[in-house]
Amino acid sequence: MSQKAYNVAVAGATGAVGNQMIQCLEERNFPVKTLRLLASARSKGRKLRFHGDELPVEVMDANSFKGIDIALFSAGGGASLEFAPAAAAGAVVVDNSSAWRMDPDVPLVVPEVNPHAIAGYTKKGIIANPNCSTIQMVVALNPLHKEARIRRIVVSTYQAVSGTGKKAIEELVDQTRAMMNFLDVPRKVYPHRIAFNCLPHIDKFEANGYTREELKMVNETRKIMEAPEIGVTATTVRVPVFFGHSESVNIETEKKLTVARVRELLEKAPGVKLVDDTSKNEYPMPKDGAGQDLTLVGRIREDESISNGINMWIVADNIRKGAATNAVQIAEVLAENYL
Amino acid sequence: MSQKAYNVAVAGATGAVGNQMIQCLEERNFPVKTLRLLASARSKGRKLRFHGDELPVEVMDANSFKGIDIALFSAGGGASLEFAPAAAAGAVVVDNSSAWRMDPDVPLVVPEVNPHAIAGYTKKGIIANPNCSTIQMVVALNPLHKEARIRRIVVSTYQAVSGTGKKAIEELVDQTRAMMNFLDVPRKVYPHRIAFNCLPHIDKFEANGYTREELKMVNETRKIMEAPEIGVTATTVRVPVFFGHSESVNIETEKKLTVARVRELLEKAPGVKLVDDTSKNEYPMPKDGAGQDLTLVGRIREDESISNGINMWIVADNIRKGAATNAVQIAEVLAENYL
Repeated sequence: MSQKAYNVAVAGATGAVGNQMIQCLEERNFPVKTLRLLASARSKGRKLRFHGDELPVEVMDANSFKGIDIALFSAGGGASLEFAPAAAAGAVVVDNSSAWRMDPDVPLVVPEVNPHAIAGYTKKGIIANPNCSTIQMVVALNPLHKEARIRRIVVSTYQAVSGTGKKAIEELVDQTRAMMNFLDVPRKVYPHRIAFNCLPHIDKFEANGYTREELKMVNETRKIMEAPEIGVTATTVRVPVFFGHSESVNIETEKKLTVARVRELLEKAPGVKLVDDTSKNEYPMPKDGAGQDLTLVGRIREDESISNGINMWIVADNIRKGAATNAVQIAEVLAENYL
Repeated sequence: MSQKAYNVAVAGATGAVGNQMIQCLEERNFPVKTLRLLASARSKGRKLRFHGDELPVEVMDANSFKGIDIALFSAGGGASLEFAPAAAAGAVVVDNSSAWRMDPDVPLVVPEVNPHAIAGYTKKGIIANPNCSTIQMVVALNPLHKEARIRRIVVSTYQAVSGTGKKAIEELVDQTRAMMNFLDVPRKVYPHRIAFNCLPHIDKFEANGYTREELKMVNETRKIMEAPEIGVTATTVRVPVFFGHSESVNIETEKKLTVARVRELLEKAPGVKLVDDTSKNEYPMPKDGAGQDLTLVGRIREDESISNGINMWIVADNIRKGAATNAVQIAEVLAENYL
């Protein structure tokens, strides 16, 4: 890391991801000169802690980014569309919303996979942080793709409520408590009860029957892995888990991969932790994926239904590696190489 | 239904599935002449209700099946291996354990799919009831296979704790209550916490890295659908849901199937209920699958990663259609056609 320090803004600082971004900047000792915390008018007057100081939350407007070097956005797609271009006039924006991800002039980056793409930030001043469920999948799959060329991915997800935000975390708490006490179950965030249930529905439905979350996994995977030829099909499901997304991933490769070779590749893969000893009941679980930054991979098996198939189970913290940590990692590469 | 009535035994009457078998016999008005309830010595002295009567639970031994016409077994694999052959000397055994399922002389039956196979009961006097997650999958897939020949199935499951039995239901309650009250989390049944977590581990691990549950889905699907050529690969996962298994199923067919045609086929398929209107947020969920006997199918989409692919989401009550109801349906076919 260079000795230079940066003026950093976090837009959406009071949300689940924004909060975690502040924590990641602190944990990873990012060279922050000043930190500006921005949110909507609702959060006016709040203060948040950073390296022992209490910092005020300011209301975000077009002038909020004066003097800022790096702006980490996690304020929703609307705020990103409204404020990121103005912020990008002076700062580099790392945006966690889906608003800019598929823009050909905006790099979509997972630092373990395509750090070189960050150079493209000069076009619009914006770098997009991918969708949570996509990030952990490409961290695990990219080393296998480099070795054996992935032809097709079939993925089913088991996604935590924290991906929806703080209100969804509260909803799972409130619904669970109500059910355990035989009370009426409140419902505000999701269209159906999430406590002790599974919802095969994340983000809006498109005309082709897929949800936007499912199409993000298709399109973002191809863009990040720079492999438009990979076939991807996804089913994304919300489960009653607070933190940590899990994924059942089936891949077909051009070149044969043995389980032993997959393990070898993943053992030395950046950002990956192999958790795969079934003799000791060791496999990735959201309870272990939560609160740390690695992507856990296990249940690696040859798929005998095709000649070159592998099944695996991938878990990561959706708020950390799936959002905040990945954004701060992008900022680290920016600071080290470009700013 | 014929006018004849039958002497029926339920072995494992006090378990989650055995209890539901008694309830299904009652609900479906199965022609019961006498009902004998059998369990291990632990349940001695208990009484269970059937059509308003309190029936005693007897301790199962080799003489328990004298005079019995149909014995429904759900007492675990060990008890089935020990007692089913003796019971089958006089009665027809419908066995819910995995002990006899792959025996070539034992039919493995889902009445909506292969009712004709029941005729094979004469070889050993035993009919096997398939694995819960397999039953609901073949109910939904068989109509598609008949039309378009399925080549390959990739399935990931989201399975309820009731599949493990009553103690696992208690474990999810106890762990949830402990976590909501910030107490130490008790753990007795599963190797890891199930509350607010996902366990990619159902039944024992085999040498090839798959669990027995996963291999059941491979082998039983082929046997029931009488299609040894179908490639099947499964990842089976326990989720914090009490009742109702969900499955994300991807199929590749020889003949092209459109979404419209899949809907047409499933609308008239026996035992299936189409729940697939995303414009109204209607899709199958375990909370709706529980407590009824149909297999709910929705989220039907063309898989654009291959030429003839379909994704769907399948939910059923694992204790009812996945076990007790299917066993009683087999008994109904037996009664109607063979006894």
